[in-house]
Amino acid sequence: MSLLSPKEIVEKMIDQDAFSQWLGIRILSVSKGGCSIEMTVREEMVNGFRVAHGGITYSLADSALAFASNSHGQHALSIETAISHTSPVLPGDQLVAIAKELQSGQRLARYEVTVQRNYKTVALFKGTVFKNDTPWT
Amino acid sequence: MSLLSPKEIVEKMIDQDAFSQWLGIRILSVSKGGCSIEMTVREEMVNGFRVAHGGITYSLADSALAFASNSHGQHALSIETAISHTSPVLPGDQLVAIAKELQSGQRLARYEVTVQRNYKTVALFKGTVFKNDTPWT
Amino acid sequence: MSLLSPKEIVEKMIDQDAFSQWLGIRILSVSKGGCSIEMTVREEMVNGFRVAHGGITYSLADSALAFASNSHGQHALSIETAISHTSPVLPGDQLVAIAKELQSGQRLARYEVTVQRNYKTVALFKGTVFKNDTPWT
Amino acid sequence: MSLLSPKEIVEKMIDQDAFSQWLGIRILSVSKGGCSIEMTVREEMVNGFRVAHGGITYSLADSALAFASNSHGQHALSIETAISHTSPVLPGDQLVAIAKELQSGQRLARYEVTVQRNYKTVALFKGTVFKNDTPWT
Repeated sequence: MSLLSPKEIVEKMIDQDAFSQWLGIRILSVSKGGCSIEMTVREEMVNGFRVAHGGITYSLADSALAFASNSHGQHALSIETAISHTSPVLPGDQLVAIAKELQSGQRLARYEVTVQRNYKTVALFKGTVFKNDTPWT
Repeated sequence: MSLLSPKEIVEKMIDQDAFSQWLGIRILSVSKGGCSIEMTVREEMVNGFRVAHGGITYSLADSALAFASNSHGQHALSIETAISHTSPVLPGDQLVAIAKELQSGQRLARYEVTVQRNYKTVALFKGTVFKNDTPWT
Repeated sequence: MSLLSPKEIVEKMIDQDAFSQWLGIRILSVSKGGCSIEMTVREEMVNGFRVAHGGITYSLADSALAFASNSHGQHALSIETAISHTSPVLPGDQLVAIAKELQSGQRLARYEVTVQRNYKTVALFKGTVFKNDTPWT
Repeated sequence: MSLLSPKEIVEKMIDQDAFSQWLGIRILSVSKGGCSIEMTVREEMVNGFRVAHGGITYSLADSALAFASNSHGQHALSIETAISHTSPVLPGDQLVAIAKELQSGQRLARYEVTVQRNYKTVALFKGTVFKNDTPWT
């Protein structure tokens, strides 16, 4: 098991995570198996419909999955993720992603991540991870 | 129906798609309901494990879905997408995403996108879109 | 809109639903956009591993999706569903499926269904439906 | 590794699989990582819309996933599955499910299953399995 706290692990992860930094992701809170993170959508993140590219919301949710699932101290890798975009996101919008552990076994764990703008859901994300034996140090 | 060809629609889309441009996406080919696009992974696209962030591969596949599903001339919006990352992607890797229409009805259509590096699959993506009545002009 | 109440719609649906009857599904509660239903797993429902076939838990959850999404009075059809089986289910187990509406727009709505045994989750299900203009009468 | 051939493993599985027998599933062909199976939809398999319950098509596809993924000789369990029902299925319809291995690693493997009626797709299914070390004997 890891000697690092959930918060120390996530800080270590985001320090080396160039793309989460480009997205402007900030950590709001971390617990064992959960986290809340936020970012602000910029003009360079839109697609051909002038709304946020689906990959932006996905990336935010995927980072939340990575932080939540690695917070236990063991390396966890995404196996399968799915996202439904339920409301268009615009430049200037501030998004909050809240990751929650639904189930956790020895090798596999499932998470849901809700992405919100002003407390209203804009995307629903579900992810399954595989845990190997490498500890966070 | 649209007076634009599939290629003209996709060129129009990518012209206004700031995030696909940031990713460095290039169009290889476009047909009605399908496309091949490519990009090269850069250092600023990695996550805390020093491999490409899951959001990068997702974004490439999601752009391929958007181009393929809008190529018919009618606006199409993503309802639901899922991705499995099957092999780690590294900075310098050149990725090709190939979108193929699996089924197309009046309102709904399904696509699969295979993301490859040197003709070997690194991610499997599936997407469902909703078609509204707005034509591409 | 339908003149029938959510409960009347679901009773009408299950009356004509031969497979839900074969499964032994019983309605526990119905509300606009939600429902709880239950069933007991029988010997004839197991697979080659002597545990409940994945299709049994899926079918229970899919019925819950159908009841919850049609309860508003408008016909709703499944577009896309996904399930994670998180714990093996055995003959004799009593399963409860709880459907909850996550989001509902004019044409599309998303639901999650949790399948439980003794208040512990055995499967996580997510579904998206398409609503057409046919009312329940 | 197993001393049994893919065909012997699948025959062993279906012999003990009471629900696949109830469905009337017949094996058409088996190979390492793939299979084709068929069944005929009966009146007792319909839902409240008088079409085949979504759980019927799912169950057929899920059996195909189980047979294909266990055919290598190692026990494989479903982690995550998703299905899109693309065309209504009626009593009397003969369905064929074709399972194909998309990717296979040490612990995880991905499959797609296409369900067809008269060579036309009625459902698209994707599944991920986890392989443990128990051999088929």
